[in-house]
Amino acid sequence: MNNYKLFISFDGTDFSGWQRLGGNAKTIQGTFEACLSRMTGAETEIFGCGRTDAGVHAEKYVANFKTQKEFDPLYIKEYLNRYLPQSINVFSCETADERFHSRLCAKKKTYRYRIWNSEEHNVFERKYLYTFPHRLDVAAMESAAERLIGTHDFIGFSSLKKTKKSTVRNIYSAEIIQNFPEIDIEITANGFIYNMMRIISGTLLEIGCGRQSENLPDEIFASKDRFLAGFTVPASGLIMKDVVY
Amino acid sequence: MNNYKLFISFDGTDFSGWQRLGGNAKTIQGTFEACLSRMTGAETEIFGCGRTDAGVHAEKYVANFKTQKEFDPLYIKEYLNRYLPQSINVFSCETADERFHSRLCAKKKTYRYRIWNSEEHNVFERKYLYTFPHRLDVAAMESAAERLIGTHDFIGFSSLKKTKKSTVRNIYSAEIIQNFPEIDIEITANGFIYNMMRIISGTLLEIGCGRQSENLPDEIFASKDRFLAGFTVPASGLIMKDVVY
Repeated sequence: MNNYKLFISFDGTDFSGWQRLGGNAKTIQGTFEACLSRMTGAETEIFGCGRTDAGVHAEKYVANFKTQKEFDPLYIKEYLNRYLPQSINVFSCETADERFHSRLCAKKKTYRYRIWNSEEHNVFERKYLYTFPHRLDVAAMESAAERLIGTHDFIGFSSLKKTKKSTVRNIYSAEIIQNFPEIDIEITANGFIYNMMRIISGTLLEIGCGRQSENLPDEIFASKDRFLAGFTVPASGLIMKDVVY
Repeated sequence: MNNYKLFISFDGTDFSGWQRLGGNAKTIQGTFEACLSRMTGAETEIFGCGRTDAGVHAEKYVANFKTQKEFDPLYIKEYLNRYLPQSINVFSCETADERFHSRLCAKKKTYRYRIWNSEEHNVFERKYLYTFPHRLDVAAMESAAERLIGTHDFIGFSSLKKTKKSTVRNIYSAEIIQNFPEIDIEITANGFIYNMMRIISGTLLEIGCGRQSENLPDEIFASKDRFLAGFTVPASGLIMKDVVY
């Protein structure tokens, strides 16, 4: 079997997330599979590096697919860009080892949550931002973000009900990036559980606007209580920035 | 009568341009007038600084409206931002002299045409760019752009059939701005005739990719022949940047 690795970006606004769903839902995985199956002449499955939610975007996302036939990677890239919608771009295609799996082999992922901290709408980037007009204390957000770093059980920062799978993850870095009037939250971890990035961002926003104290992350780790954490911020502001193997 | 001046930005993607039209066409003027008429309690007309085409955007656009009632400008701004769609933002409102008219009083306007000079789609900004993958000779485009500066009859750079009104305009500056892989054309003039900015941009693109020589603008001024000039590039890449009074 030939295994091909794709590096892609997408505007998730009009998609019901990555993962193929039944019915009429338009998903990124389903859109790729329709296109690849036509290219290969056989039903072809694509494996993504993460199950991004409806409306979440990606600057760099990795996926792979296997096929009996051999193709020139450049042909694959050009074929896909010709037939995929304009909201998806394949910027590179490479041959991969047969054992490579884009999700199982991922070592690190980086997500960024973009906050437009202004009373003015940004009409051009509004689909890639979350507009939050209240004044934010960036130092308090930074102090809270530092408490997230390390290995913790993130179940309190997740919408998961209960699960047998581990909800322990390791955050390598958690930064607040200011570019007036934008304030972004960027986190690199060995993995993210369901809604973790959006609930962490909502928690840091509640700390930033003074409704909660900066040691709230410690309390959530201790209690594992989802109800102590902040709201789940909208998908529009969330962007997958990178995945490392 | 009270006269109010509005500074606005808009994403023109989903509008049939500025100017109110009959039928179901969604225009920026029509959207403002519906909102202002509700605010003032009387039918209210708004005057824009230019008739931007369907799909054209604005970072800074000026409009004015007159009303019998007196309003706090901040109230107007907040009222409009509450009820207008997210693709329009009013970033400022001021009281204006009764004689002020946003189009008739305009001294200079600046438009930018954004070219994404790459084979890769930019999935996030695709609605605010024109993707043109062929290699461009920026020096040739700059040399051609310089020939546009000054007072000329721009009828050859317009989709106007024939008109009794003057088609003479004065271009103050015409620059090529590089920010790899983006190449923008920015022009400041005392006014723009119908499709002038888009046909100038199409002409500079044909010069940039070597299909035409850099003295083509002189030939178009001499012949006034629209068929010598380049194609009318898509509206998506065109942005009104500024208007000066």
